[in-house]
Amino acid sequence: MTARILVVDDIPANVRLLEAKLTAEYFEVLTANDGFSALEAAQAQAPDLILLDVMMPGMDGFEVARRLKTDIKTRHIPIVMITALTDTADRVRGLEAGADDFLSKPVNDIALFARVRSLTRLKVMMDELRVRHATTGQLDITDEAPLDTEDDARNGRILLVESEELLAEKLTEYLSAAGHDIFRTTGAAEALERSREQDMDLIIVSLHLAGEDGLRLCSQYRSQEETRHVPILLILDEGDLEQLAKGLDLGVTDYLIRPIDQNELLARTRTQIRRRRYHDKLHEMLAKSVSLAYTDPLTGIYNRRYMNAHLDRKIMEISDTQKPVSVLIFDIDHFKRVNDTYGHAAGDEVLKTVAERVGDSIRDFDLLARYGGEEFVVIMPSTPPDPAAMVAERLRLRLAAQPFEISGSDQALPITASLGVATTTDPTETSQNLLGRADAALYAAKDAGRNRVRSADAPEDGEASAEPMNAVAGG
Amino acid sequence: MTARILVVDDIPANVRLLEAKLTAEYFEVLTANDGFSALEAAQAQAPDLILLDVMMPGMDGFEVARRLKTDIKTRHIPIVMITALTDTADRVRGLEAGADDFLSKPVNDIALFARVRSLTRLKVMMDELRVRHATTGQLDITDEAPLDTEDDARNGRILLVESEELLAEKLTEYLSAAGHDIFRTTGAAEALERSREQDMDLIIVSLHLAGEDGLRLCSQYRSQEETRHVPILLILDEGDLEQLAKGLDLGVTDYLIRPIDQNELLARTRTQIRRRRYHDKLHEMLAKSVSLAYTDPLTGIYNRRYMNAHLDRKIMEISDTQKPVSVLIFDIDHFKRVNDTYGHAAGDEVLKTVAERVGDSIRDFDLLARYGGEEFVVIMPSTPPDPAAMVAERLRLRLAAQPFEISGSDQALPITASLGVATTTDPTETSQNLLGRADAALYAAKDAGRNRVRSADAPEDGEASAEPMNAVAGG
Repeated sequence: MTARILVVDDIPANVRLLEAKLTAEYFEVLTANDGFSALEAAQAQAPDLILLDVMMPGMDGFEVARRLKTDIKTRHIPIVMITALTDTADRVRGLEAGADDFLSKPVNDIALFARVRSLTRLKVMMDELRVRHATTGQLDITDEAPLDTEDDARNGRILLVESEELLAEKLTEYLSAAGHDIFRTTGAAEALERSREQDMDLIIVSLHLAGEDGLRLCSQYRSQEETRHVPILLILDEGDLEQLAKGLDLGVTDYLIRPIDQNELLARTRTQIRRRRYHDKLHEMLAKSVSLAYTDPLTGIYNRRYMNAHLDRKIMEISDTQKPVSVLIFDIDHFKRVNDTYGHAAGDEVLKTVAERVGDSIRDFDLLARYGGEEFVVIMPSTPPDPAAMVAERLRLRLAAQPFEISGSDQALPITASLGVATTTDPTETSQNLLGRADAALYAAKDAGRNRVRSADAPEDGEASAEPMNAVAGG
Repeated sequence: MTARILVVDDIPANVRLLEAKLTAEYFEVLTANDGFSALEAAQAQAPDLILLDVMMPGMDGFEVARRLKTDIKTRHIPIVMITALTDTADRVRGLEAGADDFLSKPVNDIALFARVRSLTRLKVMMDELRVRHATTGQLDITDEAPLDTEDDARNGRILLVESEELLAEKLTEYLSAAGHDIFRTTGAAEALERSREQDMDLIIVSLHLAGEDGLRLCSQYRSQEETRHVPILLILDEGDLEQLAKGLDLGVTDYLIRPIDQNELLARTRTQIRRRRYHDKLHEMLAKSVSLAYTDPLTGIYNRRYMNAHLDRKIMEISDTQKPVSVLIFDIDHFKRVNDTYGHAAGDEVLKTVAERVGDSIRDFDLLARYGGEEFVVIMPSTPPDPAAMVAERLRLRLAAQPFEISGSDQALPITASLGVATTTDPTETSQNLLGRADAALYAAKDAGRNRVRSADAPEDGEASAEPMNAVAGG
């Protein structure tokens, strides 16, 4: 994993040193010597990561970080603050200004590359989620995602895997005092089980587990889907650098070296949890917009747009499967009367109940969609005309069998539907044509008196059709 | 990067050997001894990668691959076929059956881990894009993405960076014969420029560029955003294994060892291009659904849902910015007459033209949305009441100044609008309330005779308002 890194320091020798180290590892390096040029470079050149010195004349690192995190164009770029070794207060201030991490001067190579790799890997993942508006480029839903805030790192659920009793006690004490929920385990098997039972925000793993390999556990966390994106903080000793490199390669997110400093523990914990939650939020937003685009807001079932795409695909697949595809269109009888008599809210309730009843009655591989107004469609892959007509008849009965309760009326409404079925075995038939044939069958069902099924492909085979009923009392 | 790998081979010793190698590198290993158990394991345990032996009694590897790629549950899992060294025909058959890659027996470690790492990295990236329906878990838009097909790897645009004239000639000849477009360059600077000018489907880079470091170039491709996801095929010699490891770490996707076999070149090229295009398609689909969820299908501008979320945020930001937020609601005067007189198609044209004219007249940081029917909203951050009223007046004039051309009528329609403006400086005012105030101002504008601006926050300051005009001739 490589990346473009902006190095910001007012002392040219420091810039050159970091530049040389990073370039040798094939990173691309941009440089800036003061806060203003740093902001400009960040805006114009969109680096993947910023290494930011704290002490600079003019605008200091804290202010630069604050501005970068306020600007919509730069706020997703991770920042690593470079502070004096001893200055814990600076570190806390840096994180508060929006820095994602910090490194102490003189910068240790392993630490540098560990942070840089872990942050750029994360950035690439986030960029993947930053889906932009296809046409104008203007809309970026991540712009609408709330900024990382303090709040996003509170009450973390943290799994602690540490076999050394004393250290585990101390870590639990520190983290609990900061308001996190700690789940303690001592061995890998229990740790894996625990994280499967409950979503964790962070997993802290000791490299030295009694009789077990901490890295093996990390690897297992990375390879099972539920924990793949949960950050892992590895606890190790100064002498474990080789295993650390391996761990980072496996996807360990960050590390702490013993003896553990309370402030550093809390700061790193907070950063990891905040980042994890931001990632989840992006994912949720994407999932939500996908769902908004393809579902009907009232009933929650698929909309016409999705149904059309799905039907196109199912018809295309006939050339592989050689199996017929059936569609069923149905329409609630005299629906206008429901709206006119009981109001639109009642009409909406009826539509929802219809979607529920039908949804419960179809098979897993059938697809139910709202076609518009009071019309619905069911797509049935691998279904010949007769079974399709039987499904339709079952749905008709299911709707007619039990009157619909609506709020604001103590009388349940009898509701019926007319249904039209059509089947194709021809992969070149358009979905529009197939739906048109089903629609014609639906009209035939209506003409024949409603509350019945008609099939486009077996018009004469007399599927069951109940006596027409007066659909809406008093309508 | 670690992963869960399914090893399929009918010879237990082969399974054990691969299992030992992979486990030592912290991969998780599942095993199967025949085709049927392989299909079962793939379905039940969702591995990240499948290493699949070709020669097995019962169902052979080709058939297993074919079935895995047909099943919606398993078709996104990459497959590496393991073939006898000499059997080029098998390789081609494997790729045709849907394998993503192949390895020759006896399996070389570097090759094994190179393929495994590159494919699992890609799989994780794809998984990130496989956004599922938030509530039911039923909708997965990637299910609707077309399967990788032969067609997806044709006419690739390939950038070839090779300083050795003879090899470059030969590669160009092979790839052109397969229908690809080849762009030849010999040095890194030109190569970078070329790939910025035009989207490439694949970049083939020689490790040994005259006087330059091929890996440096790969690194640059990976760190610039436009080429980050373009696959890179590295060309090297048998002795370059150390650089290969570094290259794969930098994000090189695959490699070829000289002397280059024509079939292998074409197969790997095809696999990479197909994968790249599938990735792009997923990204496009996501972007499209985001856009569908947040834009108005008729005019292409934002919809009410997006506008509301945006306005909430802008009002919230007042506590940071201390700057007023203004909203403007407007309504096309006598729009019903347009529909009634000229038909809905004409009405739609008018709505589109209104969106265009207003969109062209507002500032970059303003947001235009369709509020419903013939109502539109403009959100103006950092805008006090007076400038907001001026913007409104400018929009009013822009609409009224030039009659609207509509198809099917040789007479242009005069169109005017009534506009209401409201401003808030209070971060706790709800967007609903602010819009309500603007809406009241809009009604005041209508009451006062239409084609004018009224402001909720400066009712008496007499902004310009033209004489009311009869909006639609003959309406």
